[in-house]
Parts: sequence; structure tokens; C-alpha cells
Amino acid sequence: MQVQPLDQGIEIPFFPGVTGRITVTGTNLMAFYVEIALESVVPKHNHPQEQMGICLQGTALFQSDTASYTVNQGMTYYIPSYENHSVTNIGKIPARFLDFFSPPRDDYLAQASQSQ
Amino acid sequence: MQVQPLDQGIEIPFFPGVTGRITVTGTNLMAFYVEIALESVVPKHNHPQEQMGICLQGTALFQSDTASYTVNQGMTYYIPSYENHSVTNIGKIPARFLDFFSPPRDDYLAQASQSQ
Repeated sequence: MQVQPLDQGIEIPFFPGVTGRITVTGTNLMAFYVEIALESVVPKHNHPQEQMGICLQGTALFQSDTASYTVNQGMTYYIPSYENHSVTNIGKIPARFLDFFSPPRDDYLAQASQSQ
Repeated sequence: MQVQPLDQGIEIPFFPGVTGRITVTGTNLMAFYVEIALESVVPKHNHPQEQMGICLQGTALFQSDTASYTVNQGMTYYIPSYENHSVTNIGKIPARFLDFFSPPRDDYLAQASQSQ
């Protein structure tokens, strides 16, 4: 078993106004804590990994190619493999999310090993 | 993309004093919202799925066969495949967790289809 507070994960380089930290990593799963500053954006992108997560604080607009959702604290989400998505902070406070990827993001692990 | 509030998932039969709700399910991932009442316990068990999650509220004792951890709000955890674990609410309020399993728990999906 591993236990890790949200704010003690390994920070990796990310988008302007956005921080990302790996908290725990397993064989099939990775947890990734994201904070998006006011008016900041995770630009539209996709990845082979499936993604789920929870909004821990704030309000964000999640946009895929076909739909938009307003996601508030306490809402969970699922983004299928290779589905384009962007996340924009549309609230008045920093927006916080805990994402889970399956399988783990090899690109984040490589960045984490470079930044340590 | 799917978006689902924590408290609107599909509730399945669980342990005394413990409620569990599936919020979103994908191909490799499932999100499962758990509330453990005061002094209640998820008894020691294991499963082939890897498990990660976050404590959203309260304080619990996580115990494996070899270690114990006190897990508070904002802490993430990883439980490897087939590792025995129990979770005991040792706080003064209901303890809330959002768990993620990979692959999804087929047993929970079967229970959910029976309870609908």
C-alpha cells in the first residue's frame, strides 16, 4: 500500500497557470493532482489512456469535440481513450482536480524522472 | 465524456454502515464513492483489481497484512492487486472516499444491474 498527500506529489512541467503532480503510481493506474489558476486552460488534447477524476474545488468547463459540461466540486468525470478534451477554469477560485489514468501516463513519468 | 455527481451513482449492497455507489464506468476504469459511518468498517478483503483513491472527508485507518496508515481528507492511496486491506472509520464524522478500480469491478457491475 502507498499513501500520499495531494500536495506532496512529484510536480511536472505543465501548461501556463496549470500545475500537475503525480501522487501515486501503480501498474495499471496513476493518480495526478491538477490545479488550474483563474482563467487558465488545459488546452484541447487527447491520449491513449482512459481518464477519470473528481473536481475537488471550483468550477470548470470541460469540452470535447461534441459536448460541453460544467463541472463543479464533487462531480466525477470519465474521458475515453483518444477523446479530445479541454478544461477551462470558469470559476472565481483556483480549480482543483484529481485525475486517474489507466494505464499510467508514461510521458508524465518520464518528465518526473527528468525533473528530480 | 460522462459527468456524474458523487451522490447520483448507482448504489449497491455493501457492508453494514457502509454505502457504495458506482459513479462512472469505462473500459479500464471504474469510480466508486464510499461512505463509512462512525465506527464502521470495510472488513479485510482483496481483489484482482488495482485500487487507488482519495479521502474526501474524515479519518480512517487503512490496514494491510504488513502496514497501517492513518488516512485523512486530501490523502491519496494505492492498493496493489490482491493486497489484503481493511478500512476503519476512526474519526468523529462519516468518512468519505472516492475509489478507482482498474479494471472495473465486475462484481459491483453485476450487483448494480440486479438492484436497478
